[in-house]
Amino acid sequence: MDWMGLKDEHKLLRQDMKRFAETELSSVVLEMDKKGEPLTSAMKKIGEIGGLGILISEEFGGAGMDFLSLIVTVEELAKISPSFALSVAIHNFFGEAILSYGSTEFKKEYLFSLSTGKMIGGMAVDTMNHPIPSNGCEERLVVNGTFSDIFGFSVKIDEKEQFVVKKKGEELKEETEMMGMRSSGISSFKLDENAMSEDKRFNIDSANDFYSRMRLLLASVACGICQASLENAISYSKERHQFDRLIASFGMVRTMLADMASRAYASRIVVYQASSVNNVLDREIASVFTTESSLYVTDKGVQIYGGYGYIKDYPLEMFFRDAKVLEVFAGSADYRKVLIGKSLTS
Amino acid sequence: MDWMGLKDEHKLLRQDMKRFAETELSSVVLEMDKKGEPLTSAMKKIGEIGGLGILISEEFGGAGMDFLSLIVTVEELAKISPSFALSVAIHNFFGEAILSYGSTEFKKEYLFSLSTGKMIGGMAVDTMNHPIPSNGCEERLVVNGTFSDIFGFSVKIDEKEQFVVKKKGEELKEETEMMGMRSSGISSFKLDENAMSEDKRFNIDSANDFYSRMRLLLASVACGICQASLENAISYSKERHQFDRLIASFGMVRTMLADMASRAYASRIVVYQASSVNNVLDREIASVFTTESSLYVTDKGVQIYGGYGYIKDYPLEMFFRDAKVLEVFAGSADYRKVLIGKSLTS
Amino acid sequence: MDWMGLKDEHKLLRQDMKRFAETELSSVVLEMDKKGEPLTSAMKKIGEIGGLGILISEEFGGAGMDFLSLIVTVEELAKISPSFALSVAIHNFFGEAILSYGSTEFKKEYLFSLSTGKMIGGMAVDTMNHPIPSNGCEERLVVNGTFSDIFGFSVKIDEKEQFVVKKKGEELKEETEMMGMRSSGISSFKLDENAMSEDKRFNIDSANDFYSRMRLLLASVACGICQASLENAISYSKERHQFDRLIASFGMVRTMLADMASRAYASRIVVYQASSVNNVLDREIASVFTTESSLYVTDKGVQIYGGYGYIKDYPLEMFFRDAKVLEVFAGSADYRKVLIGKSLTS
Amino acid sequence: MDWMGLKDEHKLLRQDMKRFAETELSSVVLEMDKKGEPLTSAMKKIGEIGGLGILISEEFGGAGMDFLSLIVTVEELAKISPSFALSVAIHNFFGEAILSYGSTEFKKEYLFSLSTGKMIGGMAVDTMNHPIPSNGCEERLVVNGTFSDIFGFSVKIDEKEQFVVKKKGEELKEETEMMGMRSSGISSFKLDENAMSEDKRFNIDSANDFYSRMRLLLASVACGICQASLENAISYSKERHQFDRLIASFGMVRTMLADMASRAYASRIVVYQASSVNNVLDREIASVFTTESSLYVTDKGVQIYGGYGYIKDYPLEMFFRDAKVLEVFAGSADYRKVLIGKSLTS
Repeated sequence: MDWMGLKDEHKLLRQDMKRFAETELSSVVLEMDKKGEPLTSAMKKIGEIGGLGILISEEFGGAGMDFLSLIVTVEELAKISPSFALSVAIHNFFGEAILSYGSTEFKKEYLFSLSTGKMIGGMAVDTMNHPIPSNGCEERLVVNGTFSDIFGFSVKIDEKEQFVVKKKGEELKEETEMMGMRSSGISSFKLDENAMSEDKRFNIDSANDFYSRMRLLLASVACGICQASLENAISYSKERHQFDRLIASFGMVRTMLADMASRAYASRIVVYQASSVNNVLDREIASVFTTESSLYVTDKGVQIYGGYGYIKDYPLEMFFRDAKVLEVFAGSADYRKVLIGKSLTS
Repeated sequence: MDWMGLKDEHKLLRQDMKRFAETELSSVVLEMDKKGEPLTSAMKKIGEIGGLGILISEEFGGAGMDFLSLIVTVEELAKISPSFALSVAIHNFFGEAILSYGSTEFKKEYLFSLSTGKMIGGMAVDTMNHPIPSNGCEERLVVNGTFSDIFGFSVKIDEKEQFVVKKKGEELKEETEMMGMRSSGISSFKLDENAMSEDKRFNIDSANDFYSRMRLLLASVACGICQASLENAISYSKERHQFDRLIASFGMVRTMLADMASRAYASRIVVYQASSVNNVLDREIASVFTTESSLYVTDKGVQIYGGYGYIKDYPLEMFFRDAKVLEVFAGSADYRKVLIGKSLTS
Repeated sequence: MDWMGLKDEHKLLRQDMKRFAETELSSVVLEMDKKGEPLTSAMKKIGEIGGLGILISEEFGGAGMDFLSLIVTVEELAKISPSFALSVAIHNFFGEAILSYGSTEFKKEYLFSLSTGKMIGGMAVDTMNHPIPSNGCEERLVVNGTFSDIFGFSVKIDEKEQFVVKKKGEELKEETEMMGMRSSGISSFKLDENAMSEDKRFNIDSANDFYSRMRLLLASVACGICQASLENAISYSKERHQFDRLIASFGMVRTMLADMASRAYASRIVVYQASSVNNVLDREIASVFTTESSLYVTDKGVQIYGGYGYIKDYPLEMFFRDAKVLEVFAGSADYRKVLIGKSLTS
Repeated sequence: MDWMGLKDEHKLLRQDMKRFAETELSSVVLEMDKKGEPLTSAMKKIGEIGGLGILISEEFGGAGMDFLSLIVTVEELAKISPSFALSVAIHNFFGEAILSYGSTEFKKEYLFSLSTGKMIGGMAVDTMNHPIPSNGCEERLVVNGTFSDIFGFSVKIDEKEQFVVKKKGEELKEETEMMGMRSSGISSFKLDENAMSEDKRFNIDSANDFYSRMRLLLASVACGICQASLENAISYSKERHQFDRLIASFGMVRTMLADMASRAYASRIVVYQASSVNNVLDREIASVFTTESSLYVTDKGVQIYGGYGYIKDYPLEMFFRDAKVLEVFAGSADYRKVLIGKSLTS
């Protein structure tokens, strides 16, 4: 179903991204996932069609589109490669951070390069969603870490949260091998306090609001995973026979498809809706609901594929692992729920 | 959160219904639930403010409002009394059936009385959502059965589905005592084939489309239950102490509230969205998702109330039972999912 | 399946209790549940066959049987009436408390009457499993409160836990009307600190160990509910037709029966096993697992019964409510899990 | 907790296997899992201490131990390497098949080699648990396929099920890369009907009984996974700080540990119990319950590890994937439940 708030421009953008994903991603995605390598050449190509500066205003070389446009972009890419969609989401969001908090000078220096993909940005994330203490003793994972030129993270200094922009250097350890999201170039990173003097730092007015938008972007990765898992499972159930019947005719398969569809549907609607209002709580609720849904949906999808759901030559195997790992970057569901509950009762 | 599709007229209507429910329902609802008696005097009063002819066009004495208006009405009433909301939903939907399928003569005879509440309508429902075979051998439950003047049900005759309107007579057995929805006047009913000659019968063009709208109405009862359970649980958690702390400060309570909020939120958005498009599958997905969510939400609510969640003087005890029973009228979730899965693969 | 630790004496006892339940309970249980009245005459009769002094040694007029015997008794009674089984469990456990902690004089005074049922005992329970503070400001629910002659509860005085035995008096408020366990004579009770001087008080050596055995007894009520729900659902599925087929032939019904059987089976085995070892943690794990299982199993059972699962003339409706309320007396699952987790990590 | 049916010989065997796993498996398991390579040298070594002929009678060079001994062995190995445990389970069970159904001549030819590990056996499995049709058109996965010398599978010929023993040949395709169980040497296999004339074939008297024992063995892999995930998570929670507190002090972590413990505990008890009775239904219930439990337990474990739960240098990441894939070899839970339900109602 199409949500009532989608405009023609969003639908056109979706078509473009769908075409891009099918042309540039689908043939290589499973192979690169096996190797754990990022899709850097596709990253360059999506820059050529404007996909790396979606939120950046035209004066800095971007497309100047709205947040829903980025949501739709990320969702559509995630249907073929959740890893790549995560990389694109984080790069765009890093640009958004510069645009929101950077000095004019800094914007001029970086935004043109980021918009076109000459420079790739990354972000350090944390399952607990809290800034690095200024003593630097905590480790973080950096999305796009292995191939980005620059990356950002939050630090807490004197009880205030600052956004730090760092050029890639020695602190970024080698690739961290994870269960999923294996083409997102994840590195682990530990802040060297002494090296911070060279970094650019910006005040973040409202960190909750800021990061809740990032989490909604990650939720749109989950939406794409849900939708693609559903579509793949429907197709598979109409091709695969068991006991001389199409499995689509089995009550149990139908029930699982219905459960998948119901979560996929609800996830998309709540993410679109939350992206259209200016409300942190709505975004947090939408993103935790959607991340959980993607686990639920991919798990059912794997079951519908039977033995083939566990084999690396079929997409569900990857979607399942990617959905599982997504919660690392979107933040631990348990912790986010505690914060939502706190917000509801205060 | 308010959905983007709600207009001012819907918001005003919601305010009216909220005031009505607080004035006319809240003081009696728990007592009537214990006794298992319908709220007939409130039924009369809501007729006086137009609540019984919401969809009926003005030429027949109704309010001529849209389907979303009825959704909002039912949702709002359900926050205080799910049973009463069910009765109002079914009465209005019975009127809609006459309006859609009845002859002009028949409309003139009944719609004025139904709009004003001079006459109350009921409907026979089935967990399997299928029409009564013309040989009449199956039993049905009738919502509003104990106090309605007239009621309708579907019959399958020669492979075609017809909507039958019956004046209340002997076939309606005494009240059926159920776990929940105890103020909806549920009766059991068995069709006497010989008596059918006196009934009015109408062809139903598209039974799936027709009943999917009824199920979406029942989903709005579930939405009201979710919302009220959440609000009650939030209030309670801010009053109740345990181990000398407000329970709202416990991580576990916060997590449960977040889970409740996330389902309550998603349910409302998908029901509103599904009510605004002309698509059977969207309605079916929205209603099965929402009915299941109300079970999930009330179960968490009961847990937050602790021992008081199981005692008949507190609203959660009733909401939990009402949510559980709602699935009888909305149709068995299992069966509906099989149909959704069939639709997805055909 | 029969567990390997059951001896012939346990199997004979089970047969006796099965016969008793079928003769004395089955014809009245649903009616008394509707009315919310206790099965006092059956209580008297089970006293006549030794069911009220199972753990009490022969010197005080009891049967002097082992704890597993009481587990089997309670489980078997719960298959017909969980409320009655709860009453019997609590009465027997109250006797056990006197036997374990009472003075010789006190034992002589009360145990003969308790063994034969001349006197009925009750217990105050708490979802949080903690003793009443000596300032008495907390309310408790008393099982058998409306019809017992004497009842017990824990009080915390000077950081020590004492077991208080109270003759029935004014502090016991009227019956508390609950969602389930409606024939267990539940009353609410608030301690009047001034009145405590007349009560008998005993030191409890190890309250955790003591109450963990009570909770295992309540788990055996859950086992009975699971088993009976499964058996009822199997029978029903072999009688009920839908779409001209027995519902036992539907994949979905079979799957639900398998899920029910698996939980019912596991619950019994872990309760029997935990009753045979002297280990608090095993008992706590067994009882929280079993209480949750009974909710899961009855919920599936209600679904298999379809519309009839929600109607008060069928047993599943009652089993479902009884299972839900059981957690009030066994203690909130959430809280118990926190304690288990604490124990596992210390 | 130790189950009451474990004898000293089982406890000693457990100690031996624990020592073996710690010495021979723990240092290489994560590395081999990453590479997707089998632990062939450990396979040889476990043969030297009698672990490859546990069920084979002494006359054929085996240890002549009981089924519970094999259960304990497999469980203990699975705590370090579920893949290796699967390989050992399947090898031993293949030997059991020869012992049960083979001709004396055939036994003499193969059992000595299998007992000592000179020859390694494999088995073809199917998520639907049904034999290969004699026209051979269905694909199967073979455990130990890449490194075994000989393997077995069931074929349906003229409505009868036969066990076919095949020497490794061309039909075994290359390694199949799976999500988990990556060190079990899984290959895919398609029967070449023409080549069957060279195979040895044996009648299976009661295939259900036969394979239910294999599935119980796989359930013991699940038991090991549950137990090790719990133990790892407990240790981790006592080392890891968050917000300056040990995570073992958080209510949410405690609750998750309790849920893990409860399933781990119940799983072991039901598997041990089912291994001690001669009842297919008990075995099927125990194995489906246990396989599902291992998914539940590892999922919680991953959450307790936070971000580290998803990284390949920590054991939970592997346990989670192994548990997920286990259901392929134990048979699809959905399908097995339908069979259990059928058995319960017939």
